[in-house]
Amino acid sequence: MKILRTPRSMAAWSERLRKEGLTIGFVPTMGALHDGHRSLIRAARLRCDALVVSIFVNPTQFGPTEDLTKYPRPITHDRALCRAEGVDVCFEPTPGAMYPEGFQTVVTVPEISQRWEGQARPHHFAGVATVVTKLFGIVRPHLALFGQKDYQQAALIKRLVADLNLGVAIDVRPTIREKDGLAMSSRNRYLTPDDRRAATILYRSFQAGRQAIEAGAKTASTVERIMRKTVAQESTAHIEYLALCDPANLEPLKQVKDRTLLLGAIRIGKVRLIDNMLVKR
Amino acid sequence: MKILRTPRSMAAWSERLRKEGLTIGFVPTMGALHDGHRSLIRAARLRCDALVVSIFVNPTQFGPTEDLTKYPRPITHDRALCRAEGVDVCFEPTPGAMYPEGFQTVVTVPEISQRWEGQARPHHFAGVATVVTKLFGIVRPHLALFGQKDYQQAALIKRLVADLNLGVAIDVRPTIREKDGLAMSSRNRYLTPDDRRAATILYRSFQAGRQAIEAGAKTASTVERIMRKTVAQESTAHIEYLALCDPANLEPLKQVKDRTLLLGAIRIGKVRLIDNMLVKR
Repeated sequence: MKILRTPRSMAAWSERLRKEGLTIGFVPTMGALHDGHRSLIRAARLRCDALVVSIFVNPTQFGPTEDLTKYPRPITHDRALCRAEGVDVCFEPTPGAMYPEGFQTVVTVPEISQRWEGQARPHHFAGVATVVTKLFGIVRPHLALFGQKDYQQAALIKRLVADLNLGVAIDVRPTIREKDGLAMSSRNRYLTPDDRRAATILYRSFQAGRQAIEAGAKTASTVERIMRKTVAQESTAHIEYLALCDPANLEPLKQVKDRTLLLGAIRIGKVRLIDNMLVKR
Repeated sequence: MKILRTPRSMAAWSERLRKEGLTIGFVPTMGALHDGHRSLIRAARLRCDALVVSIFVNPTQFGPTEDLTKYPRPITHDRALCRAEGVDVCFEPTPGAMYPEGFQTVVTVPEISQRWEGQARPHHFAGVATVVTKLFGIVRPHLALFGQKDYQQAALIKRLVADLNLGVAIDVRPTIREKDGLAMSSRNRYLTPDDRRAATILYRSFQAGRQAIEAGAKTASTVERIMRKTVAQESTAHIEYLALCDPANLEPLKQVKDRTLLLGAIRIGKVRLIDNMLVKR
């Protein structure tokens, strides 16, 4: 496995492969890789000739009070996982190489960014949209894979790629969960043992919401009430948002539809957790 | 010469050529081609295997009170010019193909956009940055050429390409002028005969500024006063801005430097003209 650190060397590698007619798969990550990432890497490995994983804790998508400096960076573990999964290139740029002096361009996807995570984290999605545009420019993949756990992020990236004609196919893969239902996330390691037990409440609230829909609930307010009641069972859990929305554009729904996205964010202690569930009727 | 109308067919054409190892040159235009465009096309023709010219009057870079609907669209003349200059593909997308329903992504280059043309035309540069990012995504050129007449636009595009790692070399070519010095522009055709005669005053003010610098003027205010006095000789000319700035970042200068950019915009009647001159000491 090659480890490349500069945008220039990464771009040259991809250009060479593309000229040979090989297809490039890409899994962009912030490292601290878990089985969710592993499932993206495996799916990409099956579908492309060559496979690039980027590991870059992107400073521009963190807010000033967020966990940028504390964000886990277990690089030895991450490389070992990539090597074991047959990754061809681990792209590990420095912040200085990605954002040199004079850097100023911003990519925004205003409508998708205005609600939910975008409201909770004001500059987060501009940071995501800009870094993904850069990474796609450098890696020039044919296919890039993202996890459904970050549903709004995946929707934003699909919109971005279509709008800017970036020519990358986007595959959104199902969320990988712990046995008790907690969505895998690099931030789960921040949870104390008690909080870890409580953290499943978000998933359980979606299960309750799905059951209500399957039992015939028609209005979003009914289903949301049931989800909120479920979360209230854990006194340490605080809801940031919990909503039924349109899976196409993330607009909040008043009525349950044939495809309804249950979307939520909660805080437990100092840890913020997000998750979602797509319910078909 | 091929005429391609859809982003998909254009991207497929470029992808095929790149796989064959051929280099693609690109001259993006809004049509109404003149000798300024012709010089860009000829320079590209000499340096690349294949040559694409786009003709697209981009609605998002026009303000609500500007000349979008009146903008000249002499497509038969434009195609003939392209054909005569050995262009391989004329890319002529429709606004609907470039901005389909749901389109929302915006690319901004905030620092370069804040002054001069950016101040006079509030959403202009976001429109330019976004459409150029799209066109580069579709055409995937190795080299793109722009005219120095739109100096701030060229600076913005160089910054954008570096910041988003678009992998396109940018060549900015000297302004082509009429015999009397007027910079060629598709908007010159709006000038009445009297206004056409007066329009050279912007270029003449730069000549006066250059002479002052060559004669040893040290402060920007001295040179600016001389340029303003020159423009005042034409009673129909109204200055929007006229300044000495740093050619690297377009910040206004207080002192003349080794490389000083004289930059200006004037209105004559209803026509707005821009031009610039780079003066070396």
